[in-house]
Amino acid sequence: MTLPPHPLPQLPALPPAARIGDALADVDTPALLLELDAFERNLAKMQAAADAAGMALRPHAKAHKCPSISLAQIERGAVGICCQKVSEALPFVAAGVRDIHVSNEIVAPAKAALLARLALQARFSVCVDDQQQVELLAAATAEAGSRLDLFIEINIGQDRCGVSDVAAVQRLLERIAPRAQLRFAGLQAYQGSIQHLRGHAERRLAAARAAERTAEVVAALARAGVPCPVVTGGGSGSVEFDLASGVYTEVQPGSYVFMDGDYGRNEYAGTLRFEHALFLATTVISSGGGERTIIDAGLKSLAVDSGLPEVWGAPLDYVAASDEHGTLRPREATAARAPLGTQILLVPGHCDPTLNLHDELIAYRGGIVEAIWPIAARGLSR
Amino acid sequence: MTLPPHPLPQLPALPPAARIGDALADVDTPALLLELDAFERNLAKMQAAADAAGMALRPHAKAHKCPSISLAQIERGAVGICCQKVSEALPFVAAGVRDIHVSNEIVAPAKAALLARLALQARFSVCVDDQQQVELLAAATAEAGSRLDLFIEINIGQDRCGVSDVAAVQRLLERIAPRAQLRFAGLQAYQGSIQHLRGHAERRLAAARAAERTAEVVAALARAGVPCPVVTGGGSGSVEFDLASGVYTEVQPGSYVFMDGDYGRNEYAGTLRFEHALFLATTVISSGGGERTIIDAGLKSLAVDSGLPEVWGAPLDYVAASDEHGTLRPREATAARAPLGTQILLVPGHCDPTLNLHDELIAYRGGIVEAIWPIAARGLSR
Repeated sequence: MTLPPHPLPQLPALPPAARIGDALADVDTPALLLELDAFERNLAKMQAAADAAGMALRPHAKAHKCPSISLAQIERGAVGICCQKVSEALPFVAAGVRDIHVSNEIVAPAKAALLARLALQARFSVCVDDQQQVELLAAATAEAGSRLDLFIEINIGQDRCGVSDVAAVQRLLERIAPRAQLRFAGLQAYQGSIQHLRGHAERRLAAARAAERTAEVVAALARAGVPCPVVTGGGSGSVEFDLASGVYTEVQPGSYVFMDGDYGRNEYAGTLRFEHALFLATTVISSGGGERTIIDAGLKSLAVDSGLPEVWGAPLDYVAASDEHGTLRPREATAARAPLGTQILLVPGHCDPTLNLHDELIAYRGGIVEAIWPIAARGLSR
Repeated sequence: MTLPPHPLPQLPALPPAARIGDALADVDTPALLLELDAFERNLAKMQAAADAAGMALRPHAKAHKCPSISLAQIERGAVGICCQKVSEALPFVAAGVRDIHVSNEIVAPAKAALLARLALQARFSVCVDDQQQVELLAAATAEAGSRLDLFIEINIGQDRCGVSDVAAVQRLLERIAPRAQLRFAGLQAYQGSIQHLRGHAERRLAAARAAERTAEVVAALARAGVPCPVVTGGGSGSVEFDLASGVYTEVQPGSYVFMDGDYGRNEYAGTLRFEHALFLATTVISSGGGERTIIDAGLKSLAVDSGLPEVWGAPLDYVAASDEHGTLRPREATAARAPLGTQILLVPGHCDPTLNLHDELIAYRGGIVEAIWPIAARGLSR
C-alpha cells in the first residue's frame, strides 16, 4: 500500500483574534474590546460611591457574563454578584465567586435542583413572588441538603415580576417561615424602566416614586414585626438616587463597567457619570464601488434593541445594520472616505445582549492588548 | 493527615436542555426547537422549485449556522452552500461540505490566508468589488498554493457592497485575468431589501427591477465577449421571482428552512410559501402577583431587530422584551391566565441572529425530541 500522492492537509484552525502584546490596530475583527483604564476608573468610582453611602455593592453579572470582571469588582469591595439565570452562575462559581444572588424567579424543577446543588458551594439567594416557587425551592434544598436565602420581589412600577402589596408579601413569609432550609433575606425592588429615562430630573422623580413604594412595604412589614435585613435593587441609570434613597441597603448596577451607548445618552447632573469602556472593533470591507462605507459588523456582533451603535472618534454615523454588515454615512457629504481596511471602533447601544454574542473580551491599555478574558457565561440563559 | 470532615462537592455540570426521546414538554427552557416535519417539507419544496426551474440551489448557511442542516440540503440536491464570513465556513468544511461560496468581501490578510488554506480542502468562491481585494486574494492563494473562484458583486439597489457599473466590472476582470490561481466565476447580485416587502405585487415589482439591472450587466459583458458562468443571488422572500427571472443561474435562500416571523408576515400568492419550523420554547416563570404573564426568554434568547416574536398557538401577544424576560398579554382581557410552569412556544421574528444566540437546535417530531444538532458556527463572525 502506498500513500496517496497529495494527502489532504489538516483543517486549519481559526487563528485567535488577538494575542497579548498585539497592537489594537492588528486585532482581527469584529472583536469586542475593553479599554482597561476607563474600566478601572468606572469600577473605582462606583465602589467609592457605595462606600460613601455605606451601602453594599452587588454588581450585576448579566451585563458582562465575564468572571474576570466580577473578580475585579469583588477585589475592590463588592459583596458578591447578581446573576439573572441559574445556569449563568455556573462559570462564576467555578471562578471562585462565593456570594451570588439570582435576581429572578424560577419554576422548573431542573433549575431548582441545580440551584440547590450550587448552594452547597457558595451562598446563594433567589427571588420569589409566588408560593409555588417557595415549595419548589423547599423541596430542592431538602433533597440537596443545602440552604437558600429568599428575596421576595415586589413590583414597584416596572410591571414585570413581583407581588403588588404587603398582604402578598406576608402570605409568602408564612410559606417560608416553617422551612428551616429557607431564610427570608429581604426584598428585591427593581424598576428597570427608570434606568433609560433621558432627563436627569425625570429619572430622579421616577426613582423617588419607586423608592417611596419600596419604603411603604418596608415600613408596613416593620409595623408587623418583620425586619427586612436587605433591600436590594437599582441599576446603573438610577444608582445615584438609589444610593441616596435611604431605603435600599444594596445596589445591583451592571452596565456602569462599560457605559454602553444607551446609558451614554442619559443626562447626568451628578458625579456618577461613567466612561465608555466597551468598543466593538470593525473594519471597512467595501466602498460599494467608491460610493459607500461598509464595515464587517452587524446584527451578529452587536445588539440593536436600544438603538444603533455610535462610531467612536470619527464624524460618521452607523445608519443600517444587516446580519454581518454595517453601513456608515459621513456626517458631512464632502468628507474623505475611510479606505478599505480602516479599523473603526463602535460603542454598542446595549452592552448586555452584545456581550452575549461574543466568546471573549479583548482588554487593552494604551493601544496594546493586555489580557483576553473569556465571556464564560455567554449563552447561559437557562 | 486526615481528610477534612466535609470535602467540597464537585461543581455540578449544567444538565442538557433535552435528551433524545424526551417529550417536548420536558425540554428545559429557553431552548431553540426545530419541527422536523415542517422543516423537511420546506427543504423538499425549495429543492423541487429549483429543479423545476433548472437552477442551482445554494442555500445560505448564515440563516442556521448548523452543519446538519447544510448536509440535509445537499443530500436533497443543493450544489453547495453560502457562508457570509470566512470563519463561519470552518465547521461546515469540518462536517464534509465541499463547495462553499463566501458571499461577501474580505480585506484582512489574516482572513485571506485562512480562506486560501481552506480552499485546499473544498471548492471555495468569494466576492470582490475592489481591486485591493483581488490583490489580497492573489497573494494569499499564491502563498497557500490554492485556487479561488471570484464573483464580482454588483449593486442592484441594496446600496451595500458591489460595484455600480459595467466599467467597474471590467476593471476588476483585468485584475483577475493574469492571476492563474484566480478564476472569474460570475456575478453576485443580491438585493436584501426586497425580501421583506410585505405585498406580493410590490415584491414582484422590486425583484423584477433588480433582475433587470442584473440582466443589463450580464448583457453588456456578453457584448464585450465575457461570459458569466454563474449569476448568484436571491433570498427566501424573492425566490419565486428569482427562479423565474431568466437571469440568475443559482439562488441563495436561507431562511426558508425555518420561515421566521418576519418572512411569515409577507404576503405570498404563489406556492412558495414555507412553514414555520423554528420555535423558541419558553416557560411562564411569574404571574406578577396574579396580574401578568412573564416568561423566561428575552433579548438574550431571540433577536428583536425584525419585530417581537409571535406566540404560537395561543391567543397571547409578546409585548415587551428585556434581557431575560418576556411579557405576554392575553388578546382578550377576560382570558384565563397561563399557570406558572406553562410551556409557551414563540416564533422568532428573525431567524439568522436568533440562531446565533444558541449552541444547539433541538429537533423534534410528533412532540418527541429526535436529534440535537450543534449550531457549530454560532458566534463565528470573523
